[in-house]
Amino acid sequence: MSGFERDAVQVILCDIFGTTVDWFSGVSGQAAEIFAAAEVPLDAAAFANDWRDMYLPAMQRVRAGERPWAYLDTLHRESLDSLLERHAVVLDDDARARLVRAWHLLPAWPEAAAGLARLRTRYTVAALSNGGMALLTRLVKAAELPFDCILSAELARSYKPAPKVYRTATALLDVDPDRVLMVATHGWDIDGARAAGLRTAFVERPGEKGPHRQADRPSDTVSDLTASDFLQLAEILGC
Amino acid sequence: MSGFERDAVQVILCDIFGTTVDWFSGVSGQAAEIFAAAEVPLDAAAFANDWRDMYLPAMQRVRAGERPWAYLDTLHRESLDSLLERHAVVLDDDARARLVRAWHLLPAWPEAAAGLARLRTRYTVAALSNGGMALLTRLVKAAELPFDCILSAELARSYKPAPKVYRTATALLDVDPDRVLMVATHGWDIDGARAAGLRTAFVERPGEKGPHRQADRPSDTVSDLTASDFLQLAEILGC
Repeated sequence: MSGFERDAVQVILCDIFGTTVDWFSGVSGQAAEIFAAAEVPLDAAAFANDWRDMYLPAMQRVRAGERPWAYLDTLHRESLDSLLERHAVVLDDDARARLVRAWHLLPAWPEAAAGLARLRTRYTVAALSNGGMALLTRLVKAAELPFDCILSAELARSYKPAPKVYRTATALLDVDPDRVLMVATHGWDIDGARAAGLRTAFVERPGEKGPHRQADRPSDTVSDLTASDFLQLAEILGC
Repeated sequence: MSGFERDAVQVILCDIFGTTVDWFSGVSGQAAEIFAAAEVPLDAAAFANDWRDMYLPAMQRVRAGERPWAYLDTLHRESLDSLLERHAVVLDDDARARLVRAWHLLPAWPEAAAGLARLRTRYTVAALSNGGMALLTRLVKAAELPFDCILSAELARSYKPAPKVYRTATALLDVDPDRVLMVATHGWDIDGARAAGLRTAFVERPGEKGPHRQADRPSDTVSDLTASDFLQLAEILGC
């Protein structure tokens, strides 16, 4: 906290998958049900991790201009098809569509809504995610997360950590990047925000990738603040 | 209500200025204070009406491609400067900036928040206004309006009633236009939404232009539904 000017911040941007909602439990839980119904002999937890591992490379191809911009749902479907083929799994189109939509309905981390509500009393608090506007609107509504507004990488037709995603968000909110605090649990997101001139807060989510994977650690990344969750972040910021 | 399939609707888009918030009271009230402090001998109510009258023509020049896209704040400032010049009024830059920002903080109509909250229980409810994202986020937060998300004509870099504004909103929410209900109190907005393939609800706001001007009347426009306010609309839609 030393040296961090909390009064200089006007806007807080929050990452969603992993930072605000528990994608691992949500996706592996829904996948387990779909696999059971279809008698697919895959371990849902390992499947969720493997699927998520394909997320950054898929977005990187868009950012690098190797393919036109595509919705996150499209990238998820392509990586799903590829993953199921690798495991030689037969699964009908309807079940695949339901798996893609599993990313639209994920449980919030237990303290997230209460922490966001406290942050909102002092700051404008917006979502900024690689999920599309439709996905985010559905997810935020179902999880009852009290954001002031929802912003998506879709509005920049790119993906985080491309600087233009963070800059599009600050431009839409008409605020200087150094008056914005990006909250995330991934080093690549924190690094991207810092490179775009934003301030950063690393929120630790040790269980973000489930029990068998190591989550990103704040010690591996340079950030202005670190917090164990949104309530501690609210405390640090005097909310 | 006869013939209107409320179950076919998934998303409700709400206009803001006049429909959800009382721009006349908000702008004329703030203008009265600024004029009093600067000893400007203008009638604030007439001024607010005259300023608002310049709104549609200014946006029309953008829609017609006669000038590049510009923020609503920019259009408001230009028309303000022109209006003050017409009245030969001297007013410093700071006071003019405060007048432009009057549009960022406007009181909600008394039943709006309660009506939106009821509509949200059944539908996804989003703002869709010609105000920019920054303006809308500030206004919606201050007025405590419970939208699921905020969308702006800025995202289409045009202005209502251009069809691309409504279509950009439905595309971002990944919903067919005919599953969307546009709620507005202006005939031109209802007409624009209908032309873009949306369903429409005219909400009557007889005092929208203050005591000396006639507000738009539902009888002058073709809409699927008409309601006296958001609570009656919620009632009609079974919320």
